[in-house]
Amino acid sequence: MKVESLSSRDNPLVVKVRKLLRDPGAYRKLGAVWLEGDHLGAAWRARGGAGGEAVFTEAAWARPERRALAEGAVRVAVVPDGLMSDLSSLDSPTDCGFLIPWSGPGQILPAVDTVVLDRLQDAGNVGAILRSAAALGVKQVVALKGTAALWSPKVLRAGMGAHFALQLVEAAEEGALVALGLPLLGTSSHAAAELHQAALPSPCAWVFGHEGQGASAALLDRCQLTVRIPQPGGEESLNVASAAAICLYESLRRRLAQ
Amino acid sequence: MKVESLSSRDNPLVVKVRKLLRDPGAYRKLGAVWLEGDHLGAAWRARGGAGGEAVFTEAAWARPERRALAEGAVRVAVVPDGLMSDLSSLDSPTDCGFLIPWSGPGQILPAVDTVVLDRLQDAGNVGAILRSAAALGVKQVVALKGTAALWSPKVLRAGMGAHFALQLVEAAEEGALVALGLPLLGTSSHAAAELHQAALPSPCAWVFGHEGQGASAALLDRCQLTVRIPQPGGEESLNVASAAAICLYESLRRRLAQ
Repeated sequence: MKVESLSSRDNPLVVKVRKLLRDPGAYRKLGAVWLEGDHLGAAWRARGGAGGEAVFTEAAWARPERRALAEGAVRVAVVPDGLMSDLSSLDSPTDCGFLIPWSGPGQILPAVDTVVLDRLQDAGNVGAILRSAAALGVKQVVALKGTAALWSPKVLRAGMGAHFALQLVEAAEEGALVALGLPLLGTSSHAAAELHQAALPSPCAWVFGHEGQGASAALLDRCQLTVRIPQPGGEESLNVASAAAICLYESLRRRLAQ
Repeated sequence: MKVESLSSRDNPLVVKVRKLLRDPGAYRKLGAVWLEGDHLGAAWRARGGAGGEAVFTEAAWARPERRALAEGAVRVAVVPDGLMSDLSSLDSPTDCGFLIPWSGPGQILPAVDTVVLDRLQDAGNVGAILRSAAALGVKQVVALKGTAALWSPKVLRAGMGAHFALQLVEAAEEGALVALGLPLLGTSSHAAAELHQAALPSPCAWVFGHEGQGASAALLDRCQLTVRIPQPGGEESLNVASAAAICLYESLRRRLAQ
């Protein structure tokens, strides 16, 4: 492992990270993903992540528990605080980061509990859904074309490490969903069946759609079942990440009750 | 109703709105809340909101369905597009807004289903929880001191009109919760009881805490019951708005099953 001090904003590593921070989809071209902070770095290492380039402030590099996160890194760069804040999208920058190889757009695994995202726009929603999926026992998330880039800094931050617990597939075409070999379940406020009463197939693939428009009509047509979340308050809709948490919880509750 | 053209950034109405956009808590001093866009305006009117000052672009003022939102306004200001974008926190500014009287910090209603927020920081989370609460039949949200300001532009936007369907209380002291006259329910990843199996009192007050630290130990001590959301995926926690959606759904599901 090579350790070096780095102070220039023109260094290729710094230039690359700044590109990743500026453009949410840049990781696809650059083949690398920027993990900000010790929490994401630790989540990645805990799931067997190896290689990558680790960046630490001088203070962080002096702390053994931070330094341990560099194990397995190809290279370590120690940078002044000012430069680290250039490498951060946060108001209060963290003291370390990890530039890791991007694992590619991913291949659909058949027959495992899955979430399908149809053109979700908000990175916070996408990250929260990844987190719920990982926590509630879903194995795979498939993002259809037009969904916010899964490995962008914002989605990574909101995902809190869930990325490394899931099979992630992105930029998928709707037609590719047949490879799941699973019934698709959709939500719609117009559906006749109510979530808490409907028979839910298991395993299944839950579909969640665009914040304003919901899932496309074509995709809802592919669903074996469409359910409505009971809403006695009569509001028009839940936030999509809240709706996803509820549906995934209900599927899990049924499995646990068996 | 007085209708006037307004083009100066120094106009007192414009100055006030810009203060509200700059400082999330300014509405407490100014006694006024800024609703951006026709959706929030319509939600407010639909719940009996009257008075206030309506601001429209010239194009919006020419549209009858937008103009209808001005009914009941004390004053209407028609502004050039450039000035409207100064009155917006959005990347693509909306074409109307409503400066309405703030209803004050609110009083606790006893014995109605309630959500208690303990120092939540993220406006998006707070707004999503308000939305879930309103949709899932909760009547009241009590924000303890240190929680993000409920009537800030960001929370209003994420709340999508839920503010007007709820009794909202803010800047409450923990001791004031006795006025609820309800059992408090908390969540903790260390709790022995699991949500799907625990007996849940109804009505009740669900407590959700700070994104990083959870609810305070003192507040958890006041809880009659603390439950864990089952997480076979083993991730350390769910996003707080996702956790809230799950708990409120489970309470609702039990009520519907009775």
